[in-house]
Amino acid sequence: MYLTLGLHRSLQQSPDAPATIFGDRVRSFREQADRVARLAGALRELGVRDGERVGVLALNSDRYAEFLLAVPWANGVLNPVNIRWSPAEIVYSLQDSQTGILFVDDAFASAVPALGDGYSGLRTVVYLGDGSPPAGMLSYEELISGAQPVEDARRGGDALAGLFYTGGTTGFPKGVMLSHANLLISALGDQATVPARVPGERVLHAAPMFHLVALGVGWLGGLLLGGTHVILPAFDPAAVIETIERHQVRSVLLVPTMLQMVADHPAVADHDLSSVRNVGYGGSPITEAVLARAMKAFPAASLRQGYGMTELAPSATMLGPDEHRVGKNLRSAGRPFVNVEVQIVDADDNEVPRRTVGEIVCRGGNVMLGYWNKPEETAQAVRGGWMHTGDAGYMDHDGYVYVVDRMKDMIVSGGENVYSAEVENAVGSHPAVAACAVIGVPDPEWGERVHAIIVLKPDHTASADDIRDHCKTLIAGYKAPRSCEFVDALPMSPTGKPLKRELRKPYWEGKDRYVH
Amino acid sequence: MYLTLGLHRSLQQSPDAPATIFGDRVRSFREQADRVARLAGALRELGVRDGERVGVLALNSDRYAEFLLAVPWANGVLNPVNIRWSPAEIVYSLQDSQTGILFVDDAFASAVPALGDGYSGLRTVVYLGDGSPPAGMLSYEELISGAQPVEDARRGGDALAGLFYTGGTTGFPKGVMLSHANLLISALGDQATVPARVPGERVLHAAPMFHLVALGVGWLGGLLLGGTHVILPAFDPAAVIETIERHQVRSVLLVPTMLQMVADHPAVADHDLSSVRNVGYGGSPITEAVLARAMKAFPAASLRQGYGMTELAPSATMLGPDEHRVGKNLRSAGRPFVNVEVQIVDADDNEVPRRTVGEIVCRGGNVMLGYWNKPEETAQAVRGGWMHTGDAGYMDHDGYVYVVDRMKDMIVSGGENVYSAEVENAVGSHPAVAACAVIGVPDPEWGERVHAIIVLKPDHTASADDIRDHCKTLIAGYKAPRSCEFVDALPMSPTGKPLKRELRKPYWEGKDRYVH
Repeated sequence: MYLTLGLHRSLQQSPDAPATIFGDRVRSFREQADRVARLAGALRELGVRDGERVGVLALNSDRYAEFLLAVPWANGVLNPVNIRWSPAEIVYSLQDSQTGILFVDDAFASAVPALGDGYSGLRTVVYLGDGSPPAGMLSYEELISGAQPVEDARRGGDALAGLFYTGGTTGFPKGVMLSHANLLISALGDQATVPARVPGERVLHAAPMFHLVALGVGWLGGLLLGGTHVILPAFDPAAVIETIERHQVRSVLLVPTMLQMVADHPAVADHDLSSVRNVGYGGSPITEAVLARAMKAFPAASLRQGYGMTELAPSATMLGPDEHRVGKNLRSAGRPFVNVEVQIVDADDNEVPRRTVGEIVCRGGNVMLGYWNKPEETAQAVRGGWMHTGDAGYMDHDGYVYVVDRMKDMIVSGGENVYSAEVENAVGSHPAVAACAVIGVPDPEWGERVHAIIVLKPDHTASADDIRDHCKTLIAGYKAPRSCEFVDALPMSPTGKPLKRELRKPYWEGKDRYVH
Repeated sequence: MYLTLGLHRSLQQSPDAPATIFGDRVRSFREQADRVARLAGALRELGVRDGERVGVLALNSDRYAEFLLAVPWANGVLNPVNIRWSPAEIVYSLQDSQTGILFVDDAFASAVPALGDGYSGLRTVVYLGDGSPPAGMLSYEELISGAQPVEDARRGGDALAGLFYTGGTTGFPKGVMLSHANLLISALGDQATVPARVPGERVLHAAPMFHLVALGVGWLGGLLLGGTHVILPAFDPAAVIETIERHQVRSVLLVPTMLQMVADHPAVADHDLSSVRNVGYGGSPITEAVLARAMKAFPAASLRQGYGMTELAPSATMLGPDEHRVGKNLRSAGRPFVNVEVQIVDADDNEVPRRTVGEIVCRGGNVMLGYWNKPEETAQAVRGGWMHTGDAGYMDHDGYVYVVDRMKDMIVSGGENVYSAEVENAVGSHPAVAACAVIGVPDPEWGERVHAIIVLKPDHTASADDIRDHCKTLIAGYKAPRSCEFVDALPMSPTGKPLKRELRKPYWEGKDRYVH
């Protein structure tokens, strides 16, 4: 099995059906296959060797989707760069992966000189935009029109398909090596577990395609089903609403924040979103209030929540439509996909009893090949075939998994384990709090002290004591924040999570909190 | 991924749900897991080494299903023996695979001495029946109660999961080596392509479990979904009907002959079969008349036809519920599963134009590892990653595959290709014909001559000239049988196909018709 399989299948079954819709540009599978075969030919002419990494730094587009097919077609390896990263982080990932060819669009063309300054190995830059390319770059469209098509390499199975850099919230970036089989098994398992997506369906892409939820579940799942990819350059709630109605989109994948922004947008009232049957959201649980608004906005849709990580290509567990309908277990990340085994283990990798917090570990055909050039980190993460997620959680008696915290976000205060997520729920329920993050900071008396960093709602006030007193009505005293800090905004990761690494930095500078 | 994954998953999610129902015996997943872990312990105590083949020769039962889990759990390799084979064929397969341990039930215990005479390597025989085992055999239940449970080996991925002997209709048996990944990808692909089976569903097993349709699609698919296996020892239309109603079965897999026997059985009128939502049938197309009767017998069911072969673990293409509803393309084997690529190629492996007959070839994660100890046959069958099915067929412009004939059943007469299936359709449409098989026999003038072997309906008569004249009204003269032979019955394969090898034997003795 290889990533391009779905294109071959659609070329046989529905060559004239739309493969991609991007703005007013519609391309059939026949056109897409021709362009991909030519672009792969161009990549070979540019000297791409078997297994060489080829990068893309761009907003979503139909060309991004062609890139995802052309690189494996040419027997290259994908390196979809995180568009939220700083130039220094991007330089690190290009250097680490020895990426010599990079595709950029208008949004990122201006960043190229800085990347070139930091990394001398960038030999070719391809401009994905329309019109003439900036100086020193090649034109994407001229490459396609000028190249001879080549045969699909059809390399697949356990061969490396892509490097997916991750680790922004918890440490230095690592290149997750995923095979064709990893990605395809995860996509098949998703579809086998949730029999709701259908052949030829229209899938909306609003979340960035470098991210594995968009790439693995959204794009690859839709590709296998012969679906049409309706692509927005980036997330915008009004555009999402308008596009769904215009193109009769059936499946949508979002993060909860995006789902909330769509559900709360005034344009929902004026648009018919009943074509949507599947709404997948990942990254964090949904509240009952947001769920109710989402179900009103998408009256014909089933909701499902996925939990996973890049290293799992990306799916581990799912809270399915049935659980959403009855509204139970909404705090749960659901149960394992049919192709994944999940256990909760202690520090010695022994399974712990139900409802006991431990580390969530996963096993299956979706577990990564390893971290690029990091054998020690790989051996640490994948032990006995089990991917150690670094997430703390527990499982109930029906096999539902509850993610409690990142293991590294756990605070050890006075010998007691405190899970920051539990404290954040308590702090966040104070009526004056708009957002918060809870971390452990060094404390001479307690080892670590529970510390809350809080954004207040406009025109609201609260003191540290108010917060602390409020929390004590909800959770044990030793879990309530011993100190609070009020800020205007929290630094956020691309997936909408507070960057605790950044928040901890001033407190832990020079101390080795992160020795695992 | 490993075959036992579904059991671990169900043990977490629904330990007290029924795993198997066999007669009045119901066993939960908790019981099944305990018994499987003990049986695996017993296998290790009996000296089963990593990768050693363990055989089973038995009718269907809940113990058969436990066996299928315990062998991989103990890191052994499955060898489910074809129950329709002669002792000589079974001896060949045991010897070829060096199977030292064999499980047998009451139906096959009496065959053991003859097997022992032919093959000296059978060191242990385990009796699957109730009560005391025959002399020289071990008791299955005593093995389980006396053994310590062991940890699941959890060996999977590309590791060998089983040997599946095949080739009865076209040559000497070959051991098809299937990996865990082969079987699991095929089962996932089936579920991803047909989103109709649901978690916890009840699956009826009436076809023999050694066969890969029952084992791969029925058993493994149901296992992944946490389903309950309702098991009949063997196919019997009245028992199928009664069991479906009694246990509210949702999914059924049959061959078309079985489907016809159920649909035509008088007991259908007295039983409610509306619990059945999925009827899968494989092996050959369905006629409109049988389809209409099947849809009446199963009023709430969707029908789907699968085409494949053991070497494909076993699925290649599917004619889905939509095609059955509109009644179009019923002669087609459908389109590729989402995890399979199918092409029609000429003798040089170049893809032929649509609607041109060639050899059907398939590629994907389901393609076998190879034939056991037969590197030459493997290299001949799997070329460039493509499994050469040996089936002649064509593809239409929508990607539907039509199986025309076995390549080896193609007759070359006077330089013209004649597909036996086309001739059989013509002969079979004569009102006096109950069944027929068409083969090529040596002919001094034509090289090969089209020859029909015919079973007439009771109280009907027809001469060779009658048959020939009838055929000429339907197909070209050179395709009509030049000679006919009338017999009482045709030798049949386990899957209900005429054994053309047997029929050809008297004509071709000493001649090398089978050089490929």
